Amino acid sequence: MYGAGDVRVENVPDPGLVEPTDALVRVTRAAICGSDLWPYNQMEPTDGGRRMGHEFIGVVEDVGAEVRTVKAGDFVVTPFVWSDGTCVFCREGLQTSCLHGGRYGMDGVDGGQGEAVRVPQADGTLVVLPVGEDDELMPSLLTLSDVMATGHYAALSAQVASGKTVAVVGDGAVGLCGVIASRRLGAERIIILGRHTGRTALAEEFGATDVVSERGEEAVERVRELTDGLGAHSVLECVGLEQSTVTALAIARAGGAVGRVGVPQDESIPHGVETFFDNVTIGGGPAPARAYIEELLPDVLEGRIEPGRVFDRASGLDEVPDGYRAMNDREALKVLIEP
Amino acid sequence: MYGAGDVRVENVPDPGLVEPTDALVRVTRAAICGSDLWPYNQMEPTDGGRRMGHEFIGVVEDVGAEVRTVKAGDFVVTPFVWSDGTCVFCREGLQTSCLHGGRYGMDGVDGGQGEAVRVPQADGTLVVLPVGEDDELMPSLLTLSDVMATGHYAALSAQVASGKTVAVVGDGAVGLCGVIASRRLGAERIIILGRHTGRTALAEEFGATDVVSERGEEAVERVRELTDGLGAHSVLECVGLEQSTVTALAIARAGGAVGRVGVPQDESIPHGVETFFDNVTIGGGPAPARAYIEELLPDVLEGRIEPGRVFDRASGLDEVPDGYRAMNDREALKVLIEP
Repeated sequence: MYGAGDVRVENVPDPGLVEPTDALVRVTRAAICGSDLWPYNQMEPTDGGRRMGHEFIGVVEDVGAEVRTVKAGDFVVTPFVWSDGTCVFCREGLQTSCLHGGRYGMDGVDGGQGEAVRVPQADGTLVVLPVGEDDELMPSLLTLSDVMATGHYAALSAQVASGKTVAVVGDGAVGLCGVIASRRLGAERIIILGRHTGRTALAEEFGATDVVSERGEEAVERVRELTDGLGAHSVLECVGLEQSTVTALAIARAGGAVGRVGVPQDESIPHGVETFFDNVTIGGGPAPARAYIEELLPDVLEGRIEPGRVFDRASGLDEVPDGYRAMNDREALKVLIEP
Repeated sequence: MYGAGDVRVENVPDPGLVEPTDALVRVTRAAICGSDLWPYNQMEPTDGGRRMGHEFIGVVEDVGAEVRTVKAGDFVVTPFVWSDGTCVFCREGLQTSCLHGGRYGMDGVDGGQGEAVRVPQADGTLVVLPVGEDDELMPSLLTLSDVMATGHYAALSAQVASGKTVAVVGDGAVGLCGVIASRRLGAERIIILGRHTGRTALAEEFGATDVVSERGEEAVERVRELTDGLGAHSVLECVGLEQSTVTALAIARAGGAVGRVGVPQDESIPHGVETFFDNVTIGGGPAPARAYIEELLPDVLEGRIEPGRVFDRASGLDEVPDGYRAMNDREALKVLIEP
């Protein structure tokens, strides 16, 4: 990406191993992320451009001398950041804060929207998948890289548990995965807030029990009507805009929790006084996907959850620029890339 | 209180039972709260004035026909709000959000800084104390009404647990009780942020291991120095001002939690983006003291904690206006009232 709206497909040098902890992965499936649309809309023009993509799945081609847990030929999925797996934060399951980790597409590390990636800290980062390259579960497995793990983390941060009433703000891929995660964690009622009927219909298939298509103050009123005036125990904020954040905080029940996973576009958190007097807990952040892949994997493999259904368009590498456009125009929900 | 700085001691009609769920309590000890200083500094002048005081302990003089759990002659402590004990929030331990509860000094209910109070919803509100009126533990028992329960809730909201590093922002009575609570919950290291040496010395007696007297960015740097650059797992925000809140959020470790119990003086919560990327959880609010009195009581009775040491001045009712002044001037830490 060279600037807002300027995505180009270019030939770059093939990656190779650099550190003894690296793995070289041939990408078999990748994705465009809703968070990729922030720079797609806002990035200042640059000469050098920026490598894009942090969700991918692929086959290990080669590994460095110190890599122990993956080997050539392994089929692997990566969480959306790489991490060493051994530092104090990784041991606590917060791999997004790894002291020796980093992000794809930066500092000499490739982006996932391409043919191959040098993955640093392969042992701490990659998870081997017990399936073949052509498995029909590939789209769902790919969501473990980010959106399904993020939906799960949103639900955990919002303290979703058996019997609770959940509200999910946002009908994008993460919001839909938040519905799946909430259902999986035993939520009794799941209210999806969104106005795109195709997406809210999918949310209902995933387990949403109510759809609120209103916005702003009307949405708040509607959720209160649905919850005996009390609000939702658990609210998943899956957008990051000011309005969605205000709504999320306003529909939380006293003593409830809001899990933020939409990247916040504002410096401060609104409703600081109301949330205080209502004892609302605000949690979340970038999901430590690495901590959850193994937990979610059996449910994907055994078909109990089908997060791959959030992909409604597949594209080759050449069509990636149009994939960005389609997602940005809300013409596509989420684009699967087949290099 | 008739306005900022205008506290008067007046004779008012004796309270009596109104509802069958009421209890009439003769106040034996009361207190001035740090939160009483907000109106003391900011209240618009009024003709009618406002009854003050929400921390008290006393003897039940009479009860309504439906009261079951307390009787005349019982020695009782009240949490700082009254609550029915039966609504959905009370059953969850969030009595501050009781659907049929309320605050002292409002809507025809007396304030605690006086000789007697009609306590609504006596069964849900009052806790009988197994001691006599002259017990030397009285100051510590009185703190269960608010500051010790609030310090405990701050620690719970900040997810204090065995082995963690805790930072307490604020050396007022609540901050000091937060130190006691953190120690009680097994914190390994407790850093108190405050610049009043008498108070930080008491914090050290309560279990603080480090004192940071710097403010603002310097305080943040100092805490980072003390924590290997990582920050504190648990931060107790016991002030409520913008600067203290910024500091509290900035010294939280990635993956850590901030418990807010200082009444926030600003509409929004700062550091919304930093806390997101660090996965910092923000919790807290008005402490549901009623939920914790029974838990904390044995530790007070058996002398394992001595929160009553936060009282450094005792006064009769006539000296209450000067007690406000002394606390506001930071000449007194917390004033005990002996009607």
